[in-house]
Amino acid sequence: MTKLEELKKYFLRDRYVALSEIKIVEATSALAVCEVKVKDFHLNAADLAQGGLIYTLADFTFAVLANNLHPTTVTQSANITYLSPARTDQTLKATAREITRVNKNCVCEVIVTDENGKTIAVMQVNGFIKENSPI
Amino acid sequence: MTKLEELKKYFLRDRYVALSEIKIVEATSALAVCEVKVKDFHLNAADLAQGGLIYTLADFTFAVLANNLHPTTVTQSANITYLSPARTDQTLKATAREITRVNKNCVCEVIVTDENGKTIAVMQVNGFIKENSPI
Amino acid sequence: MTKLEELKKYFLRDRYVALSEIKIVEATSALAVCEVKVKDFHLNAADLAQGGLIYTLADFTFAVLANNLHPTTVTQSANITYLSPARTDQTLKATAREITRVNKNCVCEVIVTDENGKTIAVMQVNGFIKENSPI
Amino acid sequence: MTKLEELKKYFLRDRYVALSEIKIVEATSALAVCEVKVKDFHLNAADLAQGGLIYTLADFTFAVLANNLHPTTVTQSANITYLSPARTDQTLKATAREITRVNKNCVCEVIVTDENGKTIAVMQVNGFIKENSPI
Repeated sequence: MTKLEELKKYFLRDRYVALSEIKIVEATSALAVCEVKVKDFHLNAADLAQGGLIYTLADFTFAVLANNLHPTTVTQSANITYLSPARTDQTLKATAREITRVNKNCVCEVIVTDENGKTIAVMQVNGFIKENSPI
Repeated sequence: MTKLEELKKYFLRDRYVALSEIKIVEATSALAVCEVKVKDFHLNAADLAQGGLIYTLADFTFAVLANNLHPTTVTQSANITYLSPARTDQTLKATAREITRVNKNCVCEVIVTDENGKTIAVMQVNGFIKENSPI
Repeated sequence: MTKLEELKKYFLRDRYVALSEIKIVEATSALAVCEVKVKDFHLNAADLAQGGLIYTLADFTFAVLANNLHPTTVTQSANITYLSPARTDQTLKATAREITRVNKNCVCEVIVTDENGKTIAVMQVNGFIKENSPI
Repeated sequence: MTKLEELKKYFLRDRYVALSEIKIVEATSALAVCEVKVKDFHLNAADLAQGGLIYTLADFTFAVLANNLHPTTVTQSANITYLSPARTDQTLKATAREITRVNKNCVCEVIVTDENGKTIAVMQVNGFIKENSPI
């Protein structure tokens, strides 16, 4: 099994992500990419993709990146900024990369874009690495 | 219809919140309260309530508060800190209150607790009020 | 020496705070209050109180609160939102209170207001408590 | 006058930055770099570079970047994470780059490192662009 297949298998157990139809697309030592196609069940009362969906996509992409780089990393805090609304039938892509790691703390950036490359949201996440990890 | 009934009716249209089984409990001029009972479909790969669920609960509670106080408020940015994990069968309660409002900007605090009053997460949200509102 | 006098004495050693002419006003188990009178040397290129001054005031007020409640607390991350500009000759007051504490993590809120009670900035700070503390 | 000289000249008026001995090093369309050499007057009560100094360095570097790219940009909110302490005689370098810009909102990242390249702090800043700007 490749590393990507292993991650996909492990994260099959994330039931809220499965419910939300978020998919892992890519995971390397440099980045992780996940996607979701916005459907009717993802919408808020204003008929836009719910902010919670966009957050879940971004935070999960961080989890895939962090678990690839340093197993047992948890989100300690996250700061998300919404820049454009997203609508039904758009495929949203989240790309996560690590900005820095110092001891047991890592800081990552996640950018969520739509199919045209427009930025939907940007997130900065502080992860806490619970155990020593090789990378 | 009371104000609470009106808000419940309006937010029936939030389909991601319905999917997540998040319920509005209370909405006054001082605060908003929402709840979710953690079930198997809310769990992440580590069998804990997914961070995205907790965020969605908190951000939605802000939306209920803000739409009660100032219709047409949107989340501009949000900062969430996770303090304790939450497990299946716990009922999580989010309580939102406005810290301050200056012109078209409001800043709100949301605290998520479990049934024993233990803090699960704290969020600070910056809302942008799109139209003039009476309050 | 009262607790307030002890804190004032300890924080005399904070030289950047002394340079910035920030003063401790009050420190109880519930809150801490610090003040600064905005002078010419605090201004940015647009003749407004520099954002760094407002941050320093808020973060220091958190430090006073946290060191009163749990000695050896350090700022892990802080999120500040600016709501109104502040000008020369205004006295800015920062009030810090603890929102929650779980184990070695505390989350505090700091509100900075001017003399008329107008909100200048709001900060949420995550503190890490390095040693066990009695409270 | 080059663009860098113009920026240096304009920001001479930032008196809090002058008081803090923070210097502009570089400003291009891609990034801005500022530095400060930590001296005794920058220290907190624990003899480390005050968190407010590090914030002021980072936020000012954002201001230089943003004013170069989009004049009249102001800081709306900023989220800073501290990763390592900094001590006397170290020269701290802050590097700012724009992550994204959508209409009147930009999101920038600032990384503060010491002379050995160790990360001291990471900041994400949301800027509001008050007037239309060419870039």
